[in-house]
Amino acid sequence: MPQLDFDIITLGHGSGGILTNKLLETGVFELLKNPLLDEHHDGAIFELSGRLAFSTDSFVISPVFFPGGNIGELAVNGTVNDLAMCGAVPKYLSLSFILEEGLTMKEFWEILVSIKFTAEHAGVQIVTGDTKVVERGKGDRIFINTSGIGQVHEKAQISTKRVQTGDKIIVSGHIATHGIAIMSVREGLEFETEIVSDTAHLNHTIKALLDEYGAEIHLLKDPTRGGVASVLNEIVRDTRLGINISQKSIPVLEEVYGACELLGLDPLYVANEGVFIAFVSAEIADDFVKKLQKLEHGQHAAVIGEVTTEHPKQVILQSQIGGRRVVNMLVGEQLPRIC
Amino acid sequence: MPQLDFDIITLGHGSGGILTNKLLETGVFELLKNPLLDEHHDGAIFELSGRLAFSTDSFVISPVFFPGGNIGELAVNGTVNDLAMCGAVPKYLSLSFILEEGLTMKEFWEILVSIKFTAEHAGVQIVTGDTKVVERGKGDRIFINTSGIGQVHEKAQISTKRVQTGDKIIVSGHIATHGIAIMSVREGLEFETEIVSDTAHLNHTIKALLDEYGAEIHLLKDPTRGGVASVLNEIVRDTRLGINISQKSIPVLEEVYGACELLGLDPLYVANEGVFIAFVSAEIADDFVKKLQKLEHGQHAAVIGEVTTEHPKQVILQSQIGGRRVVNMLVGEQLPRIC
Repeated sequence: MPQLDFDIITLGHGSGGILTNKLLETGVFELLKNPLLDEHHDGAIFELSGRLAFSTDSFVISPVFFPGGNIGELAVNGTVNDLAMCGAVPKYLSLSFILEEGLTMKEFWEILVSIKFTAEHAGVQIVTGDTKVVERGKGDRIFINTSGIGQVHEKAQISTKRVQTGDKIIVSGHIATHGIAIMSVREGLEFETEIVSDTAHLNHTIKALLDEYGAEIHLLKDPTRGGVASVLNEIVRDTRLGINISQKSIPVLEEVYGACELLGLDPLYVANEGVFIAFVSAEIADDFVKKLQKLEHGQHAAVIGEVTTEHPKQVILQSQIGGRRVVNMLVGEQLPRIC
Repeated sequence: MPQLDFDIITLGHGSGGILTNKLLETGVFELLKNPLLDEHHDGAIFELSGRLAFSTDSFVISPVFFPGGNIGELAVNGTVNDLAMCGAVPKYLSLSFILEEGLTMKEFWEILVSIKFTAEHAGVQIVTGDTKVVERGKGDRIFINTSGIGQVHEKAQISTKRVQTGDKIIVSGHIATHGIAIMSVREGLEFETEIVSDTAHLNHTIKALLDEYGAEIHLLKDPTRGGVASVLNEIVRDTRLGINISQKSIPVLEEVYGACELLGLDPLYVANEGVFIAFVSAEIADDFVKKLQKLEHGQHAAVIGEVTTEHPKQVILQSQIGGRRVVNMLVGEQLPRIC
């Protein structure tokens, strides 16, 4: 952490004057430095051509530091993943902070360092940004917006419109882990094994899959807020097709399952941060899963269901004991501020 | 405003479930609809090539509705202007909301409608977005992030590095108007003529100037937070050159000047939203001003000073009565949450 003559963030740091400059020059710019950011202009300028993907997300997670990560790491991973779900290789991120007066410089620095390392690992550059400060009680320590630009993989043809009957639905790993990690902190629950968020950037894994399977991958989605159930419901709504999923094939960590029972939550509705869902041609589904299982974050990948014309606009779950039930979209606010 | 079965925003609208979908489908997507947004994917995909500009800004202005505009209009104009300052023609915007529980749907709708019209006038498309909701007392009604992508004008060569001795400094209009409009509401001041914010998108004006003067325009900046004084100080810091400005040539509305006196503020430090500063070759400066005066938002343009080697890293003001004083960067938080 740099030597600064202040320990906490004050309104002056959002003024555009000397304090803002001190915070940026000695802190943010120095840590994240790269040739584009170093220009200090109102935006970054770069050459990029072809099919581009553009995405944005604001992160308001509470608590800011949680088992397995913090809001900074989450903010980089979140937008990187949204771009990856478009079939793109993420290239450039913007980074915009809304800080609450009173945030300590130590906390802010820890978040900044996470941002730096996560961006490096994900292979993206932070090229432009903004910092605002609001009065105590008008924010909640720190909110972060990241927006990003990526270059769509030449083989990618990702669109809800490409989902078709017979497509296999694959989930890349254990579901519900992020939501339960956050919830357990909020509720003060303790488990034998600590449940940590699965926050991760999936872009390298997605790229490897696109390299190999290209247009056989019809749709990619990351089931964050609202969980797997809400994402699948959006897809049946938009495609007017139906989806069958099988409960016993859905990977859930035992301790997460236990926590869900304790909290009265269905893992299908709980948020994920390092998991994606793929809709792929039936022909390649088994190969796809085998390949994915060898890739980072894909070890527990599994086919969880398929697309059908049988019950348009409905997601049907076959339960462990053989019954069938409709899985609806999340009602209400199961887990507010989970990302 | 659409028929919705809720009047206020609740945490459930940020859950990713049914309420989020209702808000988005019936509200946001329906109002802002365009083919890219209609894809409902995690990001937008489009073709774009060449030199691109990328910028981001979070808006936390208080009050949300102010004389001359609201946070929605400001959020579109702000990022459009940042892109224009890069010499770019703005093309695509992202739009991300952090709503505080309790915001009325009526207020949100009014802001959305402003966003729609401002984007249309500016000639940009909103192609991707995000909506989060935080608990009462953890936000302040509404914060908006916009990020944007533009295509850099083929003739543009805008960079702090291109500022050189002898360059003329031009301001495009009356300064300090936005800051005083906000301040007068906060302080409950009344004037004979209402002072309204100058929030405006400057991209069409900038494009016309780039068409004509191209690389003769060395740098463009919009003096928002920290005002004209802070922007000029950033430039002398980065270029290690000096700047002379003349007080009598700086356009300030009479009532704004009066309000500044009353409030003990120096207009040079007060935020602007519809004004830019240009550094141009001395040879074209007069033509540039004449041309600008005929363009939208440029009627009151004036040369306010020039770049010099005389006093490196210092901005010197020649006052009305002939004295000279150093103009420093803003200290402290003169006007918090002005944008």
